[in-house]
Amino acid sequence: MESRDPGTRDGRDMLWSGWGDPERAAPLPEAVAGLLRDLLGVRPPPERGGTRGPAALEEITVPASRLSGDCRAALAAAAGGADHVRVDAESRIRHTRGKSTPDLLRIRAGDVADAPDAVVLPGSHEEVLAVLGVCARHRVAVVPFGGGTSVVGGLTPRPGPGAPAAFVALDLRRMDALVSVDPVSRTAVLQPGLRAPRAERLLRERGFTLGHFPQSFEWATVGGFAAARSSGQASAGYGRFDDMVTGLTVATPEGELDLGRAPKSAAGPDLRQLVLGSEGAFGVITSVTVRIRPVPESSAYEGWRFPSFAAGTAALRALAQDGPLPAVLRLSDETETLVGLADPSAAGAAVTGDAGASGTSGCLAVLGFEGTPGEIEARRDAAGAVLRGLGGKPLGAGPGEKWAHGRFDAPYLRDALLDAGAFAETLETATFWSGVPQLYAAVREALIRELAGAGTPPLVMCHISHVYPAGASLYFTVVSAQGGQGGQGGQGAEGDTAADAVAHWEKAKHAVNDAILGAGGTISHHHGVGTDHRDWYAREIGPLGTELVRAIKHRLDPYGILNPGVLVAPLTEE
Amino acid sequence: MESRDPGTRDGRDMLWSGWGDPERAAPLPEAVAGLLRDLLGVRPPPERGGTRGPAALEEITVPASRLSGDCRAALAAAAGGADHVRVDAESRIRHTRGKSTPDLLRIRAGDVADAPDAVVLPGSHEEVLAVLGVCARHRVAVVPFGGGTSVVGGLTPRPGPGAPAAFVALDLRRMDALVSVDPVSRTAVLQPGLRAPRAERLLRERGFTLGHFPQSFEWATVGGFAAARSSGQASAGYGRFDDMVTGLTVATPEGELDLGRAPKSAAGPDLRQLVLGSEGAFGVITSVTVRIRPVPESSAYEGWRFPSFAAGTAALRALAQDGPLPAVLRLSDETETLVGLADPSAAGAAVTGDAGASGTSGCLAVLGFEGTPGEIEARRDAAGAVLRGLGGKPLGAGPGEKWAHGRFDAPYLRDALLDAGAFAETLETATFWSGVPQLYAAVREALIRELAGAGTPPLVMCHISHVYPAGASLYFTVVSAQGGQGGQGGQGAEGDTAADAVAHWEKAKHAVNDAILGAGGTISHHHGVGTDHRDWYAREIGPLGTELVRAIKHRLDPYGILNPGVLVAPLTEE
Repeated sequence: MESRDPGTRDGRDMLWSGWGDPERAAPLPEAVAGLLRDLLGVRPPPERGGTRGPAALEEITVPASRLSGDCRAALAAAAGGADHVRVDAESRIRHTRGKSTPDLLRIRAGDVADAPDAVVLPGSHEEVLAVLGVCARHRVAVVPFGGGTSVVGGLTPRPGPGAPAAFVALDLRRMDALVSVDPVSRTAVLQPGLRAPRAERLLRERGFTLGHFPQSFEWATVGGFAAARSSGQASAGYGRFDDMVTGLTVATPEGELDLGRAPKSAAGPDLRQLVLGSEGAFGVITSVTVRIRPVPESSAYEGWRFPSFAAGTAALRALAQDGPLPAVLRLSDETETLVGLADPSAAGAAVTGDAGASGTSGCLAVLGFEGTPGEIEARRDAAGAVLRGLGGKPLGAGPGEKWAHGRFDAPYLRDALLDAGAFAETLETATFWSGVPQLYAAVREALIRELAGAGTPPLVMCHISHVYPAGASLYFTVVSAQGGQGGQGGQGAEGDTAADAVAHWEKAKHAVNDAILGAGGTISHHHGVGTDHRDWYAREIGPLGTELVRAIKHRLDPYGILNPGVLVAPLTEE
Repeated sequence: MESRDPGTRDGRDMLWSGWGDPERAAPLPEAVAGLLRDLLGVRPPPERGGTRGPAALEEITVPASRLSGDCRAALAAAAGGADHVRVDAESRIRHTRGKSTPDLLRIRAGDVADAPDAVVLPGSHEEVLAVLGVCARHRVAVVPFGGGTSVVGGLTPRPGPGAPAAFVALDLRRMDALVSVDPVSRTAVLQPGLRAPRAERLLRERGFTLGHFPQSFEWATVGGFAAARSSGQASAGYGRFDDMVTGLTVATPEGELDLGRAPKSAAGPDLRQLVLGSEGAFGVITSVTVRIRPVPESSAYEGWRFPSFAAGTAALRALAQDGPLPAVLRLSDETETLVGLADPSAAGAAVTGDAGASGTSGCLAVLGFEGTPGEIEARRDAAGAVLRGLGGKPLGAGPGEKWAHGRFDAPYLRDALLDAGAFAETLETATFWSGVPQLYAAVREALIRELAGAGTPPLVMCHISHVYPAGASLYFTVVSAQGGQGGQGGQGAEGDTAADAVAHWEKAKHAVNDAILGAGGTISHHHGVGTDHRDWYAREIGPLGTELVRAIKHRLDPYGILNPGVLVAPLTEE
């Protein structure tokens, strides 16, 4: 088993009030700020004691912890020591909610009403089982916490009436080992708290890669990937995380599950696929066995331009269905292409809807290939022939390398946008190829209708980032002025301003969720359900499907202590 | 929606007492019979009224149907007419058990104690729901019936004390339409009673193929493929059936499920993977949406020889992990290779364990490629280079074409073997590549030890027929003399003889099941759980996993009417 190396970069804490490494924060360029002001009506947020931006961590007051002394002592015994049960304000603030824009708006304003009553750090499967036992006895809820990168309210319990109100964040960072590598089967056993960059580094020392690079890569954990059905930027080449998992151990209040004796089996339903996507509501994933691959010798990225999103979509479909499939395959719509070209004058056309008429019209596709130089060349040639035949024009390596270089940067930009008084959020869905145009139009239309109607006309961008033989995902980015009092220049208290901005967005978001279901899409392709999508998830799987998920939860978590209100509404709520 | 064409060949009934098309039955060549006699001690079975072989259908008496008149009338109303509720002896005999060798031994002897009390033929999702409602009200169990090809006791309810004793076979043959094709997404909606050859023909009329060719292909149905997690002979190229399914509708006593809005989703656990492999115990699959592919222009099969099973396994692993992956990829062990070479003199070495020392030693691999002739040539060349580098010697197209020609024939041979007094059965498992040698040795050893120890030394053959990046399946064929009174020349009644032979085999089979679990394998890679593997399945998924499966069943089937005792033991049984 590997020793931990907490002194390295990936042992750092994420910025509590925003995204990522605090040292990498950067202000918005003045040109962009001006553009936001002119095009979207973005105005600087109210000043806070002479500064703009988040409150100071030390100024924030957390509610008193609701854990009894008995419970704390029992948790300390279960988790291997008092050091592993933390009730200090900073620990609790750092485990408050996730990283959706509403989460950030609230915490930037100092709202930590959802702070856990303690942070518990178990060090092993057995300690997790013991902690769950204590929590079940004391009727304290448990929110499993990996990288803390949920953008769907997956870390915000919503217990029903009569359910446990006190809750602990179960931080899995002590369980961060690469347990073993099977080079013959090309599998590895990973602990859940292992962050992706460290997992990747440990595997590379043995010549292997996981090949899983979601935008949250720098901070997300292996357990989170599994619990939330993550999908990485190289999903075309490596598959989704749920495709990679061959085994799981899970600790629940009712005992343990140890699943996966073969890559595939006909021994009953695939229970692994029940744990994957369970978002901590069924149990705590304590180890994950994953497929690994040899590190490719080299990689190459390139850009292509298509005359329209429809033409580009057809080209991606051809590669997804008949190959050759690159490891990375993405297509931005006209607006995202315009904005991505970093041509401030072009963005005006994007907002006013004149993208198609602009001289820089068209859609950018990015392809990434991996392998030996010879393999890459052969696959590039074959893919290029397909793309050319479907109207694509090669743009060379530049746009591809630019994308690869900045592939994890977008969340940092959001912090700067929020500082500037703008609102920025993402959402995503997927469907079958024949339904992609309808779903794309429905989501765009709903976003523009709702936000423009509420006085904050948005810039709506979209890309396809995950393809399958039968369909694809659509990923939308929305930028607008902040709604509510902040955006409308009101003079309310800071907390009210944030709450208003959240409510303003949530109204639009709910309409978009309706539009997604109405157009036949799934409520999430890779962000998950959490609390934010819960009610639409229930509609997606229907009344009996919802009851089935509840029955599964109830069997594994009869006291309803695991992430209550995440994934499904508590039984008591109806 | 397609009209049915019951007059065609695939509208025929399967041989009730054995496998397949009655017209294709053929006696065992006398040379083989002699070999069985000399090598394995196989003796002709007792004569039955001057003939050997199964009893005559019209001589068999079925137990009186336990359905009340009220229940029959209600079922007729639910299933669209009295014609769709059949209680005649032939219908009931034809729906008695499945096609495992124990099933055949019993039915050949006229034992139809497990006959359903009626055969019900619903014509739509709504009629299935209505039938389930009637059965729930009357506490009558329901055994979904597609092709009737289960080899794991999946059609033999084992209700616990207090559970419904009467049961109906729910034959889905009226639901045999190709509902729709989406050529853009390359998906098709199929009804569950559609037999594979007809599904393939209807899809080919539109230029598509399902690419799913299990050995049961000629008789199995789409619903059965889904319910039992079927894996076809071209699984390397097309994936398993559970990989192909993108959507399902399911009728249960508690309502319906409609699953699958996108190829992949992060909206909670993948509930499709819970229905796949549920073997009729959770509900009745009433439609399946599957991925389809264009019919390949051409195909080519070829044989390769490896010096040992270990060397061939390493070569298959190289193709599974690094490609190029043929559509079909199989490897026979030394014994199966010897027997498959149809050289009677070589089979002696197989039984005596001298295979390695024989002049015809080695292991045969079969590769099948599909695509344009140019694609096939390129892939053959690349695969050939890999195989040569790992000790393979090309044998040309002959062995490949021979395999392809006889790919669905093995089950017919079993009937002839049974007629000759031999016993023949298959079993299968899977694990990760690093565990394959240990699993192979453990199963072989257990079979030989148990059967030789019981006086019936077996011929044990094995092949790898399904490969994944992380592991592979092992498929064993066993031939021996029949055990029990029949094999030992006893003079008991026919039924006793069959029961003795079944008991003789089951003792060995249970030891093999233990050996599979002990060596880390899954209890089934593609045959399923049924009643035969149920107790080992419970050990495989552990106590909490078993309780979870029961909780799922209980939520969808609270009265325990669906295939009781299949997959999991009824709640009342413990």
